Amino acid sequence: MASVAPGSKGKVLLAYSGGLDTSCILVWLKEQGYEVLAYLANVGQEEDFEAAREKALKIGASKVFIEDLRRELVEELVYPSIQANAIYENVYLLGTSLARPVIARKQVEIAQQEGCSHVAHGCTGKGNDQVRFELAYHALAPSIQVIAPWRIPEFYQRFPGRQHLLDYAEKMGIPVSQTRAKPWSTDENLFHISYEAGILEDPNVTPPKDMWKLTVDPEDAPNTPERITISFKAGNPVRVTNDVDGTDITDPLDLFIYLNTVARRNGIGRIDIVENRFIGIKSRGCYETPGGTILRIAHIDLEGLVLDREIRAYRDEHVTPVFGRILYNGMYFSPEGQLINNIIPLTQKTVNGSVRLKLYKGTTTVEGRWSETESLYDMDESSMDVQGGFEPLDSQGFIRIQSIRLKKWGSTFNQQQQQQ
Amino acid sequence: MASVAPGSKGKVLLAYSGGLDTSCILVWLKEQGYEVLAYLANVGQEEDFEAAREKALKIGASKVFIEDLRRELVEELVYPSIQANAIYENVYLLGTSLARPVIARKQVEIAQQEGCSHVAHGCTGKGNDQVRFELAYHALAPSIQVIAPWRIPEFYQRFPGRQHLLDYAEKMGIPVSQTRAKPWSTDENLFHISYEAGILEDPNVTPPKDMWKLTVDPEDAPNTPERITISFKAGNPVRVTNDVDGTDITDPLDLFIYLNTVARRNGIGRIDIVENRFIGIKSRGCYETPGGTILRIAHIDLEGLVLDREIRAYRDEHVTPVFGRILYNGMYFSPEGQLINNIIPLTQKTVNGSVRLKLYKGTTTVEGRWSETESLYDMDESSMDVQGGFEPLDSQGFIRIQSIRLKKWGSTFNQQQQQQ
Amino acid sequence: MASVAPGSKGKVLLAYSGGLDTSCILVWLKEQGYEVLAYLANVGQEEDFEAAREKALKIGASKVFIEDLRRELVEELVYPSIQANAIYENVYLLGTSLARPVIARKQVEIAQQEGCSHVAHGCTGKGNDQVRFELAYHALAPSIQVIAPWRIPEFYQRFPGRQHLLDYAEKMGIPVSQTRAKPWSTDENLFHISYEAGILEDPNVTPPKDMWKLTVDPEDAPNTPERITISFKAGNPVRVTNDVDGTDITDPLDLFIYLNTVARRNGIGRIDIVENRFIGIKSRGCYETPGGTILRIAHIDLEGLVLDREIRAYRDEHVTPVFGRILYNGMYFSPEGQLINNIIPLTQKTVNGSVRLKLYKGTTTVEGRWSETESLYDMDESSMDVQGGFEPLDSQGFIRIQSIRLKKWGSTFNQQQQQQ
Amino acid sequence: MASVAPGSKGKVLLAYSGGLDTSCILVWLKEQGYEVLAYLANVGQEEDFEAAREKALKIGASKVFIEDLRRELVEELVYPSIQANAIYENVYLLGTSLARPVIARKQVEIAQQEGCSHVAHGCTGKGNDQVRFELAYHALAPSIQVIAPWRIPEFYQRFPGRQHLLDYAEKMGIPVSQTRAKPWSTDENLFHISYEAGILEDPNVTPPKDMWKLTVDPEDAPNTPERITISFKAGNPVRVTNDVDGTDITDPLDLFIYLNTVARRNGIGRIDIVENRFIGIKSRGCYETPGGTILRIAHIDLEGLVLDREIRAYRDEHVTPVFGRILYNGMYFSPEGQLINNIIPLTQKTVNGSVRLKLYKGTTTVEGRWSETESLYDMDESSMDVQGGFEPLDSQGFIRIQSIRLKKWGSTFNQQQQQQ
Repeated sequence: MASVAPGSKGKVLLAYSGGLDTSCILVWLKEQGYEVLAYLANVGQEEDFEAAREKALKIGASKVFIEDLRRELVEELVYPSIQANAIYENVYLLGTSLARPVIARKQVEIAQQEGCSHVAHGCTGKGNDQVRFELAYHALAPSIQVIAPWRIPEFYQRFPGRQHLLDYAEKMGIPVSQTRAKPWSTDENLFHISYEAGILEDPNVTPPKDMWKLTVDPEDAPNTPERITISFKAGNPVRVTNDVDGTDITDPLDLFIYLNTVARRNGIGRIDIVENRFIGIKSRGCYETPGGTILRIAHIDLEGLVLDREIRAYRDEHVTPVFGRILYNGMYFSPEGQLINNIIPLTQKTVNGSVRLKLYKGTTTVEGRWSETESLYDMDESSMDVQGGFEPLDSQGFIRIQSIRLKKWGSTFNQQQQQQ
Repeated sequence: MASVAPGSKGKVLLAYSGGLDTSCILVWLKEQGYEVLAYLANVGQEEDFEAAREKALKIGASKVFIEDLRRELVEELVYPSIQANAIYENVYLLGTSLARPVIARKQVEIAQQEGCSHVAHGCTGKGNDQVRFELAYHALAPSIQVIAPWRIPEFYQRFPGRQHLLDYAEKMGIPVSQTRAKPWSTDENLFHISYEAGILEDPNVTPPKDMWKLTVDPEDAPNTPERITISFKAGNPVRVTNDVDGTDITDPLDLFIYLNTVARRNGIGRIDIVENRFIGIKSRGCYETPGGTILRIAHIDLEGLVLDREIRAYRDEHVTPVFGRILYNGMYFSPEGQLINNIIPLTQKTVNGSVRLKLYKGTTTVEGRWSETESLYDMDESSMDVQGGFEPLDSQGFIRIQSIRLKKWGSTFNQQQQQQ
Repeated sequence: MASVAPGSKGKVLLAYSGGLDTSCILVWLKEQGYEVLAYLANVGQEEDFEAAREKALKIGASKVFIEDLRRELVEELVYPSIQANAIYENVYLLGTSLARPVIARKQVEIAQQEGCSHVAHGCTGKGNDQVRFELAYHALAPSIQVIAPWRIPEFYQRFPGRQHLLDYAEKMGIPVSQTRAKPWSTDENLFHISYEAGILEDPNVTPPKDMWKLTVDPEDAPNTPERITISFKAGNPVRVTNDVDGTDITDPLDLFIYLNTVARRNGIGRIDIVENRFIGIKSRGCYETPGGTILRIAHIDLEGLVLDREIRAYRDEHVTPVFGRILYNGMYFSPEGQLINNIIPLTQKTVNGSVRLKLYKGTTTVEGRWSETESLYDMDESSMDVQGGFEPLDSQGFIRIQSIRLKKWGSTFNQQQQQQ
Repeated sequence: MASVAPGSKGKVLLAYSGGLDTSCILVWLKEQGYEVLAYLANVGQEEDFEAAREKALKIGASKVFIEDLRRELVEELVYPSIQANAIYENVYLLGTSLARPVIARKQVEIAQQEGCSHVAHGCTGKGNDQVRFELAYHALAPSIQVIAPWRIPEFYQRFPGRQHLLDYAEKMGIPVSQTRAKPWSTDENLFHISYEAGILEDPNVTPPKDMWKLTVDPEDAPNTPERITISFKAGNPVRVTNDVDGTDITDPLDLFIYLNTVARRNGIGRIDIVENRFIGIKSRGCYETPGGTILRIAHIDLEGLVLDREIRAYRDEHVTPVFGRILYNGMYFSPEGQLINNIIPLTQKTVNGSVRLKLYKGTTTVEGRWSETESLYDMDESSMDVQGGFEPLDSQGFIRIQSIRLKKWGSTFNQQQQQQ
């Protein structure tokens, strides 16, 4: 345990973004008597990390930690979620949820190494993220103390609106960027960006064209399709090729960044939904998940070719929805999170092969797929023209056995119908 | 029971398409000593029904029944499948499966009314459709006899290839259309068309551009988006409007036909997959489901706004996959089919509202949604800017209670990690 | 809204048991400035209700409501839970959970009728019951205020132990029964009694013989078995007969009371478990559910005879565990509670018939079952000695079709095994 | 591939029991021109194996293989089924199903080693066992040929009843035991015995007292309870002790045999059900599973103490029913069988501890349980008397957050109620 300055309430490691809110929180925590260390995770968001470092030091952070977590985000969270075809409420690809575990884990790690008794974050008291961060903190460091200023009355009553934060910033010498606040809030990482709140709170307001940041509008995307091929091994993407521009990438992180690039320029990955927060409130969110959208389509397609029917059905019914809920609700570091993480690869052993895709104005179309190692698909057996694999008479027996139960039911059911 | 001609094996009602296969079957059944009645269901496929009627009579059908089942297909099968967000293996919207129950039910009904002891169909012995038809026959008329020539050795050995059917047709005076057979087979109804077999049996062959029949190629679709609004009541579409062309439709069948029209011209609803047949074989299928694709997107979106989280989760995990499998496997007329059909509407009571959609080159984008009657979405409660609905402190208690279990696990888990 | 006395904080309807805790709470609430009305639900527990009424009035309740809820407990909660074979964590028959909805519903009803702005209960802050009561209050009367003294610091800090309550009772003139407190706490209703806390908190302590109250020790039960027959209609018990003593009961409440009587004297229905509370804590509980245990066994048995396989599987996998969790977690009055309640009867239409049972020293043995109306069980078809219902060759086709997928897997799997 | 005698149709390895049916089949197969090798698995059934060997050789088997598979049955099938709490239709512990995989696997192994082109069995064409054996054969040896005489018309038409087999035996010199056939058929292994067919086909016939073979009638069991302690490691039983008789067993096979011994003498493990066969027919079966019944109760109890709530719920809802169906339907050797087998141990890591049990006249009562290594149960936290682990106020927040959704629903629901 590192030493604590006399008179201090102890050290707190603040998840710092460089923005107005967490800058005010940093200064306010110091006012409360804490020594504040700032922590900024690079999960692929667009950000001037060095400027953020300087700002944190300028306004009083005793130390600043900037950590590149992009590779572990992609390898440990994004790819398993692709393997699981993870999704929340049929539509949301869980972009924000996927980044939280890697951010919180590193924060706890630094806090322990620096002897911080507390961790802090700038999430609101109505959202999912407070839950995701804090459940991760509690699971990974059961004795750590959490400070969530937006749930502390003396904080949120002091800063009821943005103007109060601006006044505080001016008074305390916190630099404020000159750009006007956008009428929505965002959260960005390598996998996605989210837009919510502000004008989006009316679910019937169409998001303005200039809101979307990662992808071009499908209407503005190229008039000529692009074509790529993605290869998978055990359900993980291991290679992307594009014959036109000579792309051939195998590094997991680079591969994902490339998929983002082609998806963005072809307008792929926008969604707009009303979802149910863990906290029980409905909220509207818009998301862009460019590379992830392509990857999901390719993975699902390949599974058709190489995955056994019952393994697929098991995964679809007993793994996909459970994993989606675990991620969304912030239960990644939990007994059930660990269990599902161990189950996913058991379902992916045969997911080996390649998928050819066409990308065009917001659409991702599968144009073909093959596998060099798997043989569950059998052209002769499948063929309607070839007698092969089994006798037609077998189908008759199959059908008749299936019908035993139905005939019994039918006799009764038909009688009931007639009586009505 | 109607009388049977002396010397006859009895009457058989054949599901007749007007094509080469079922025409040969019709004649062959007569050869075997049956009186053959022909039955042709209009489920919305492109077909010259009167020509088919004449052909059937010409080649020896004692009676011909042509039945317009489009409305019951849409109202009894398509709309419940939209309510359930029914899907098979993440991708297939079950278009062929949905038509089978209405076709088989009417066939059984006519067979009983005409005193037929047998029903017959022209499905192959390797596919799903034989199962779907026959399980329906057995459930609805447990004592009816089924003739499936493609599973009878003396039939399929006599006609091992298309040329043998052509020879037989020539010999027996069966008119054959001059159009060359396409190198794939199709099945069409109001909801969709399927393409399979032939050149498609190689899953890495890209379907030729001229295969797709219902929809334009997204690349050839208009450069200007179209916008429509769909309104739902209890999960069923009840109105479609298009302000530009003045469309305003409320009749269930007309509404669906209109959705098909706009979807087709905007290139919406193509898929290409490898799927797992009930029979245990993998097969490749291409499908177009124009209106159904739009409707599904709109319905899922509206549910976000108006459906309770737990009802949605229950339906997604306990109804959607079960209903998909029931339909795909031909178990619609079964105890479980009846049960699920009764459960679906229980989940849709609050699915009332409207969705605004943009259709553009293969994409369907939600641009907004609202409900005049439902109030689960609450702008104030949802707002990040407004304190409303509950105290921030409540979230703290919620998180802490959730973390009790995780802290216990974390203590143990962290010890294990350190020991490793 | 009824009038409130001047100077009063308003009226509160307290769920009152007549015991030390809720008597102190009643007096304390008056001290806080509330007008207190007492409410005591008769859900079948052993209790001197008139004494409790007098005591409540004596210590200051402005009104007392004693409500016989036994019939609605049995008809609305117990029987549906039997239909659903409801159970929690494989063992617990949910006895306490089942009574909470009827108690809370009536409390809210009286509170509204009497113009109470508040309801109060005496549950601790660590258990399930606070959750069950309050979620029911919130669902049924979203604007009602809840007072839970055991979660209010000024209350629980003032009464940190039983002696402090006794001192307060003496000081405030609250009559205290002379019987010494038992070293465990109980909750009783017509369906069951629970024992927990105190000496039971060590999960390796065997409950003392004199703890069990409802049932005789199996070792002390009669040496001669008793035999009864239970008849069900649509999954509900509609008749119990006992040929020896001439019993023949059809009234739902009387029937259940009789089942309790015979079960109790034969030592049936004791369990002892460690369970997981909703709140995330493990706790140990002992329970007696005499009649419910018999009824559950009979109902499950009858379903074997008369329920379709797939309906049963659906109910077992998609209804039973969901309903168990809903009840245990206090979510009975919720969208999902309402949904499941509507699904249960859909699964029970054919559960008509009778079961003969032997009761003996803690065991319930099925000795036979029959149905006069249902015909899914077919002796000829079932017979190993009779060729009936289908051709043996059909089984062969059935097996061969099932094996297509397995053969493919086997080929690959066996190769892998050999390579290892 | 071993050589085949000239003129022979090849070698067939027959699953041989020594009884009338498989003896006649052996001779009949020779008549058909096969060389017949006999295979008899010792899975713990009561049998004179040497007499069976001699009989097989006497009637013409070219080789006889008698294999002791008891250890693999217990270690590979029984214990995983205990870990999974495997059960079929709420009641049946899957005794017959558990033995089939080990029997079939060894049969295939010997067939391959001896160069047999065929395997044969004596199962009927209406039961589950034909499916279980053959699916295992097909999965493990996709190219092996199966002979199932009871599905071959020339066999079953020649032997329509038992007397025809007896006549054939007399004619062919097959020794027949003098004991009269019982009016039911049985299947026995170390885990259980089944009784079905014959007089049991009437589901309302109470099984005669002398049918039950493994266990004493509870009424005849000792009047004094026995007490044992079972210890588990990772969900597997690793030790059984009985302080009275000094028992202390750790060998997995011996341990199970001992549990059988004490269960049998205390009348534990009888059931009588109507179940749904895979083939779609309902059938009535009586079973004795003495040791397995005790083990299941102990395992379930221990899980309460040491297994995380969500792991338990996942296993109960997503593993137990799936594994039960896989076993029952004979899909053990399948992709999904392999998957579930790999999932089960992931759920059992913390199932370490001991359970004290009382055995008495058919009942198994848990009297206490403890764990030396696991700490999820926390007496202080659980205690109602101790403030520990969390603030009562946290529960309030937890409840309030849960109620947000319910209040919304309640407002609407209550309005609807009033309108009705």
